[in-house]
Amino acid sequence: MPERVSPVRYRARVEYDGTEFTGFQANPGKRTVQGVLEDALARLGDGERRRVDGAGRTDAGVHATGQVIAFTYGGRLSAEALESALAAILPRDLAVRDLREVPEAFNPRYAARYREYRYTVWNGPHSPLRERTALGVRDPLDTVAMARAGSAFIGRHDFRAFGAAGRSTVRTVSAVRVRRSGRYVTIDVRADSFLRGQVRRMVGLLLEVGLGKSDIDQVRAALADPGSARKGAAAPAKGLCLRHVAIGRRRNKQDGEHEER
Amino acid sequence: MPERVSPVRYRARVEYDGTEFTGFQANPGKRTVQGVLEDALARLGDGERRRVDGAGRTDAGVHATGQVIAFTYGGRLSAEALESALAAILPRDLAVRDLREVPEAFNPRYAARYREYRYTVWNGPHSPLRERTALGVRDPLDTVAMARAGSAFIGRHDFRAFGAAGRSTVRTVSAVRVRRSGRYVTIDVRADSFLRGQVRRMVGLLLEVGLGKSDIDQVRAALADPGSARKGAAAPAKGLCLRHVAIGRRRNKQDGEHEER
Repeated sequence: MPERVSPVRYRARVEYDGTEFTGFQANPGKRTVQGVLEDALARLGDGERRRVDGAGRTDAGVHATGQVIAFTYGGRLSAEALESALAAILPRDLAVRDLREVPEAFNPRYAARYREYRYTVWNGPHSPLRERTALGVRDPLDTVAMARAGSAFIGRHDFRAFGAAGRSTVRTVSAVRVRRSGRYVTIDVRADSFLRGQVRRMVGLLLEVGLGKSDIDQVRAALADPGSARKGAAAPAKGLCLRHVAIGRRRNKQDGEHEER
Repeated sequence: MPERVSPVRYRARVEYDGTEFTGFQANPGKRTVQGVLEDALARLGDGERRRVDGAGRTDAGVHATGQVIAFTYGGRLSAEALESALAAILPRDLAVRDLREVPEAFNPRYAARYREYRYTVWNGPHSPLRERTALGVRDPLDTVAMARAGSAFIGRHDFRAFGAAGRSTVRTVSAVRVRRSGRYVTIDVRADSFLRGQVRRMVGLLLEVGLGKSDIDQVRAALADPGSARKGAAAPAKGLCLRHVAIGRRRNKQDGEHEER
């Protein structure tokens, strides 16, 4: 009889093109990031199907370059061999990197200090090569007004007007950066955690500001009186990407490692 | 009876994500850029199906941001209305821009002074979000050696060892630029015109140089004695993009307009 291997807990960074996934979270009959990863790990493991935990439950169509997952692995492969085997069997729109062992209780959802998302806009005529990863906005965006309005989000606020209501709708946004590089406009938002749909509704309002249809006062009003604020339109999923999940203590050396473009 | 409109000749810039096209050139039963454009223009025109001429016959899977086409239009729409109508009926992976009237005899294939292609490499682990538009190369590329070897292509040479043999295989390459930006490595090649497969075979050899499997001497040998040189492997189509076609006289003010990223 083969000796039993005691299961190991791993964390890893995950990148995906969200276009053909129905979001991160497993959903019977749908192609999800969690479901595809659980299938792959069950094939490479000890036969038991185990849950894959993620730091961010990205919606259908949302991309990631810095999603963090954790899972318990009961198979016989070393971390390095498991990473290679995953690369070989995962579909081309999903990749797992930087596997490392973590304590048994590690869950990225609770270990995450903050999450950072980037929303990408192509501010020009329709561009086929940017179709999957950027929102096309033809009319010129006033990025100075957007940056100013964006700064009003910073701080600890009740974000009920920007996301699905749960037990608590209070979140702390620590950074909002709006930048232009040629026809690309990017909006980076960092918070301890986000309500469902929050980033896309924040971006939706900032785009209205950029088009001159709204202003910083509407941001302030929605945060000051969240109960009475009308919930705005969410920007489409395809422009959104989970870029970084910070794990561990502050000023940890590992912080910079997922910051690449 | 409606008055007859006399046909107008237009040129335009075309962008496409080549992933789902069987190349530029019309091919019965296949989805090609030329075929899709000819279908769309026939629907918007006077009922007659007319040929769309292109400056570069890109292969299956090759992208373009600066392809130049010309066609004769017999319908009743103004240039502006035609551009909007095309935007409305073309698929999302194909876009036509900057329509302008040209003389009846204008053909971009002959009017082109030079073409510029960019080959994009993602020099790192597999990246799902770059899957459609860049070649992934995991091992580190020596871009200094690549740039040096690339410069050996510059000039008027017989490129028989790099492309399909036609009537003449002599071409003039005026620029080869190899640049690194983080994990992106780009190879820009400019020539009066290219043999079929030429850019991809030039890139194939430069990648071998970057991996230490070849050197500048093999570039020199293949150009000096093209009849006896072994034809090398072509780099995959997905990394290649036709970025710019220069039309008109030298130092024409219009030259810069397609240079955006």
